[in-house]
Amino acid sequence: MTKFIEPKVLKGFRDFLPAMEIERRNLIERIEASFRSFGFVPIDTPALEYAEILLGKGGGETEKQIYRFLDHGGRDVALRFDLTVPFARFLAEHRGELPLPFKRYHIAKVWRGENTQRGRYREFTQCDFDIVGGDAAAADFEILLMMRDALKAVGAGESVIRLNHRGLFNRFLGRLGAGERTAEILRVVDKLAKIGRDAVRTSLKEIAGDDAAERILDYVEARGSFEETLKALTAAAGGEGPDTERLAILYRFMADTGVASSFSLDPSITRGLDYYTGVVYETFLNELPGIGSVCSGGRYDDLAGLYSPEKLPGVGASIGLDRLIAALESLGKSGCGTTYARAALACVHESLGGRYQALAERFRAAGIPCEVFTGAKKLSGQFVLAEKKGIPWVIIPGENPGADPMTLRELERRQDRENLSFDEAVALLKGGKTGV
Amino acid sequence: MTKFIEPKVLKGFRDFLPAMEIERRNLIERIEASFRSFGFVPIDTPALEYAEILLGKGGGETEKQIYRFLDHGGRDVALRFDLTVPFARFLAEHRGELPLPFKRYHIAKVWRGENTQRGRYREFTQCDFDIVGGDAAAADFEILLMMRDALKAVGAGESVIRLNHRGLFNRFLGRLGAGERTAEILRVVDKLAKIGRDAVRTSLKEIAGDDAAERILDYVEARGSFEETLKALTAAAGGEGPDTERLAILYRFMADTGVASSFSLDPSITRGLDYYTGVVYETFLNELPGIGSVCSGGRYDDLAGLYSPEKLPGVGASIGLDRLIAALESLGKSGCGTTYARAALACVHESLGGRYQALAERFRAAGIPCEVFTGAKKLSGQFVLAEKKGIPWVIIPGENPGADPMTLRELERRQDRENLSFDEAVALLKGGKTGV
Repeated sequence: MTKFIEPKVLKGFRDFLPAMEIERRNLIERIEASFRSFGFVPIDTPALEYAEILLGKGGGETEKQIYRFLDHGGRDVALRFDLTVPFARFLAEHRGELPLPFKRYHIAKVWRGENTQRGRYREFTQCDFDIVGGDAAAADFEILLMMRDALKAVGAGESVIRLNHRGLFNRFLGRLGAGERTAEILRVVDKLAKIGRDAVRTSLKEIAGDDAAERILDYVEARGSFEETLKALTAAAGGEGPDTERLAILYRFMADTGVASSFSLDPSITRGLDYYTGVVYETFLNELPGIGSVCSGGRYDDLAGLYSPEKLPGVGASIGLDRLIAALESLGKSGCGTTYARAALACVHESLGGRYQALAERFRAAGIPCEVFTGAKKLSGQFVLAEKKGIPWVIIPGENPGADPMTLRELERRQDRENLSFDEAVALLKGGKTGV
Repeated sequence: MTKFIEPKVLKGFRDFLPAMEIERRNLIERIEASFRSFGFVPIDTPALEYAEILLGKGGGETEKQIYRFLDHGGRDVALRFDLTVPFARFLAEHRGELPLPFKRYHIAKVWRGENTQRGRYREFTQCDFDIVGGDAAAADFEILLMMRDALKAVGAGESVIRLNHRGLFNRFLGRLGAGERTAEILRVVDKLAKIGRDAVRTSLKEIAGDDAAERILDYVEARGSFEETLKALTAAAGGEGPDTERLAILYRFMADTGVASSFSLDPSITRGLDYYTGVVYETFLNELPGIGSVCSGGRYDDLAGLYSPEKLPGVGASIGLDRLIAALESLGKSGCGTTYARAALACVHESLGGRYQALAERFRAAGIPCEVFTGAKKLSGQFVLAEKKGIPWVIIPGENPGADPMTLRELERRQDRENLSFDEAVALLKGGKTGV
């Protein structure tokens, strides 16, 4: 007896069956169309890089999670764990070939050997977009507007992009005398939504003392309109500065573009990563805030510093595609179907395979994706197959396909439309509401 | 002094800068649109799998080239080296969820630690499409028609798909008394185009003897119309059989669809891989035959046999995307530009950033991809930046953007069109011929 190899994927990895892959592609295509409309260009980088390059910025956590091994030539290599580090390397390597400011997007898979018990995947798609080479407020604003437009394009419903500025928080902590512990404090505050007020207070007290802890909590919990909050934070930070000025400009840009209601100023947003130096932001869906941020990012003043002496400031964001898909599913907004085909052409006589394809080619040229069934089983069986595939219509050709009139069956209504010319069939297939 | 990490990619790996990535995506998008018009659905599988699964069918060559290592849990894992083996595993694992015949495509990267001295890449994109679950001639024909249509869609010019049938060649070798050495002989004949007639003759003589070698050479060099060749091969194989019958049906289907001139019957086509059992084919561009086959495939009678007792016959093909891109470059048919943007909106006053984005959003909504420049340098400098980015038009807004008339500069002609309303500007930007 033959022994079979058990067909299974690694833990934390997934197959994408057609329904899921069509959903994923549909989202990516909408996001890409939105990025392209802003003049952003795509790049790609290798999945595998020198470990030294990928780990340059990584701390202990990255090193534990990265897939790293020796290749055939004994080189120490690793699979990319994000798209930011490869982009930094890319910028340093190709600086001379890129007109600045360089606006790029990169949608690709990354790999992390994370603990799958937390429901995390070890292979997932990242979707990054950045403007590099300049520190204009207009660039900050463009990224914010793109976040808003991309989320609208995927139909995620209303969302609020919560904005803050690292410099403002730093000034405030400086005034408190806690400036040296900024990084620690940022990490704790970043967990506010996740671990709650009391746990954050306890940690802050340990780091900065009782009084400072309370004042930090008051600061990060300041709420109101953008302008009110900005005023309160400006006072807490000791007056105007380049950070408050930048936030004021961004607010004016939002108002001028008529999108101010999509943004709020939220001093609790800090982003854990320490390369951010300016504005930072996270995005929550109004209908599903609990799922966490679906799009986050910020401004950094030196992305490629590990690989190049030239400073490359920039601003960018990343859409959490897997989280977004999960959100759309929860909201009942997903489901693109299981096929792109609008119609299946039934097979009545196997010997007419060529004639059927000739007819199908005419439908395809008319903009109707059309699958041709290849086996001449009973029509009822072909209807069942079309339904299983999610194809809304079946075309039943005549004895002389292409010349004879045809019948169209709408599967959902179990209704036949008979004696149709090709043009009538096309009109019917284009008109109906079923399908993608 | 800071020590910088040298920014470089691994040998055999590549960055894709915007011009190249836009080219690659443009090809993939056209190919996908063609596949979707046939009702084919996309799937995806993990980049990393159990080594046992990937190597199940591999011989020594695969084992030497595959990127394989132990993961954090000590599992023996490897990067996929093609899309066929993961598809076989996928079929065995998800058989119950897939309506048969299942028509899928899969466009994704694969990795092989090949010798880069031959100009091979270690990371490249494969583009596979298959119909699984049935052995209808109509399925064979559909794959052939898709190959033709996809190559037309990418603008590769005229091509000839060369067809053969494994069974026919096997019968011929059986009659010669060389049936036991079929696999060896297939491998040698497969190299005819690469190593030439004399080298093939020498190898064949060693394997099958002088007389058989000459007859094999005569057989594989039979040329003529499809029907003439089929007649000659039928005689050489000892008469009609299921193989000649299948080829005759396919020829009739081609004639019925009006595409017969795209196909030829070529007994030298054998395909090296031993899982093929029926029709096999390769595709050569008329204008660039020397680059080799850009699309190849065939019929197999049991793809998932290593993972499942259920037989899953099918037929499929694979487009050599990297080779196709190289071919299009050689033929001067490539070059999609370096941006998707049709226009750049100049920045006259930095303080108007919000108003500029508001205007740009109107252009985007009207179907004009529009980049917004974020820094207020001189207009001449902004023209230079637009040209470097490959953007054909610059929009110069008035002092009151969106309300005032604007100027459009066509960079190639260095020509300004002044005093335009928004609608006039859209009409002009949609009309011009420059750009993607």
